[in-house]
Amino acid sequence: MVILTVDLGGTRIRTARYTPDGRMEKRIAVPTPSAEGPETVLERIRETVRAVWPEGDTPVAALSISAPGPVDAHRGVVRFTPNISRWKDVPLRDLMADTFGVPTFVANDANLAALGEFRFGAGRGVRDLVYLTISTGIGGGIIIDGRLFEGGQGLGGEVGHMVIEPHGPPCGCGGYGCLEAVASGTAIAREARAAVARGEASLLARWKDHPEEITARTVAEAAAQGDELSRQILARAGAYIGLALVSLMYLLNPALFVLGGSVVKAGDLLLEPLRQTVRERVQPVYWENTPIVQAALGDDVVLLGALALALERLQIP
Amino acid sequence: MVILTVDLGGTRIRTARYTPDGRMEKRIAVPTPSAEGPETVLERIRETVRAVWPEGDTPVAALSISAPGPVDAHRGVVRFTPNISRWKDVPLRDLMADTFGVPTFVANDANLAALGEFRFGAGRGVRDLVYLTISTGIGGGIIIDGRLFEGGQGLGGEVGHMVIEPHGPPCGCGGYGCLEAVASGTAIAREARAAVARGEASLLARWKDHPEEITARTVAEAAAQGDELSRQILARAGAYIGLALVSLMYLLNPALFVLGGSVVKAGDLLLEPLRQTVRERVQPVYWENTPIVQAALGDDVVLLGALALALERLQIP
Repeated sequence: MVILTVDLGGTRIRTARYTPDGRMEKRIAVPTPSAEGPETVLERIRETVRAVWPEGDTPVAALSISAPGPVDAHRGVVRFTPNISRWKDVPLRDLMADTFGVPTFVANDANLAALGEFRFGAGRGVRDLVYLTISTGIGGGIIIDGRLFEGGQGLGGEVGHMVIEPHGPPCGCGGYGCLEAVASGTAIAREARAAVARGEASLLARWKDHPEEITARTVAEAAAQGDELSRQILARAGAYIGLALVSLMYLLNPALFVLGGSVVKAGDLLLEPLRQTVRERVQPVYWENTPIVQAALGDDVVLLGALALALERLQIP
Repeated sequence: MVILTVDLGGTRIRTARYTPDGRMEKRIAVPTPSAEGPETVLERIRETVRAVWPEGDTPVAALSISAPGPVDAHRGVVRFTPNISRWKDVPLRDLMADTFGVPTFVANDANLAALGEFRFGAGRGVRDLVYLTISTGIGGGIIIDGRLFEGGQGLGGEVGHMVIEPHGPPCGCGGYGCLEAVASGTAIAREARAAVARGEASLLARWKDHPEEITARTVAEAAAQGDELSRQILARAGAYIGLALVSLMYLLNPALFVLGGSVVKAGDLLLEPLRQTVRERVQPVYWENTPIVQAALGDDVVLLGALALALERLQIP
């Protein structure tokens, strides 16, 4: 028995075949024809699934798909995708189940990453965790009592849109001061570019005439070289993420926080201000028993999460 | 079969006997000897339970107790109580189970109010809701898939300590800018007293020399009479509660919000700014299907919630 998993992204479709114990047997990656509309993308997904379909009579227990946007988890419908054009209310689960005739599951990519870390990564051994992925945007997922929590109406776990700074900068969601708007890689780059434009002293000033060269990564690199401005910008982002964790501790009181995504690779320059915010603001009974750790899985976290979702739904232990 | 429920409060202990369908057969209320230490309070609770114990051979299926402070729900331990002296880590569940020899359950009062509204009040018919009670402080409770959510470590549901205004006023919890610190009755009174002390024009200015007379209730009364300052203060509190609901919609995506507590009785002067904040900041797919309603139950909401907890735990439908 094998399980097929698809990581539909804005630039690539990655599709893999797994055994239930998490061993990858085959993987394929193709560009996402994002500009060409849903039908072309759907057909490309089907091609990748056929490419990893097992030969012979090995049964396919499930097809499990990650989508890059809000998913109505109860109906398997992708509400919209920020980076693939004209995807709106696409019934991805039913379309693929019709094609392949196997149990099909669809969930949001960050939710699946949470499930991947829970089952195969940093969250092994706990029953409740909150996962945040901090890169261009901020997503996340909530595991409650060993299961992916998807919200009463199937759209929960969007930690990136918690309001952190009520009068803060506008967010892509239409709101203001969301976690994503103040602490994502995009927000870090925005703050750094603005500081350089104001003429603040920094290693980043070398890109004053090419601000597009300043990214969260260059900020982290400058911070690692001791650049004070870059350190302050990372520290502020860390403190904002810490504020989100304060609220999440009081609301959900999880056993563990797992932080993933490229921005977290900045390490303690981000994480120490984060932890300090938590310690300063939360009663010890809440934070003393709640470690905040970095994600353990790499690029395949979403594929492994899709595998974990299928195992959960098929009740395979 | 009957179920006995206790509402331990800072000023009163209220204890009742219920049939499983929610009919109250007997109720007693006595003052809480809050200043006299845990042993005296525990003995007073026992006396009230004996007073409502059924005569004859009617079986007592459970004893279900509400505590006014954080409860470690997994162990039935009251961590501390803000208004009863020297309560710290009191194993209330085991102490009462030892005395009475019946299944005993203990939970936080606001969590139980959530469960009461879910089973007997405004939340009948949904499976997922978030309840907030806004009075002197702000508490709440989360119902997920028909059950009280208590957090991975048993201390969740504390909506009053979500961070709303990072640089806001200090909160009793030790943090800053918690929902309770910016939108509770205490916060409303504080803002009104400060405005009057600054000399702002208001009906409330009559209490300039007796600011302790200014409470959330007098602010609501003045607002109802058209007082502009009072309206602004209520509107700001409403908008802050709205910010909490924004984050809760994205995180938990519940089917319903239920708002209880004395401050909510101000009605639309509080609730319209609240709803406007939600509509302005949240994507329609999140708020269009999520009504925000007032609580339906009155003073007995916590007793009914304790009954609901017992029914849930005993798996009585």
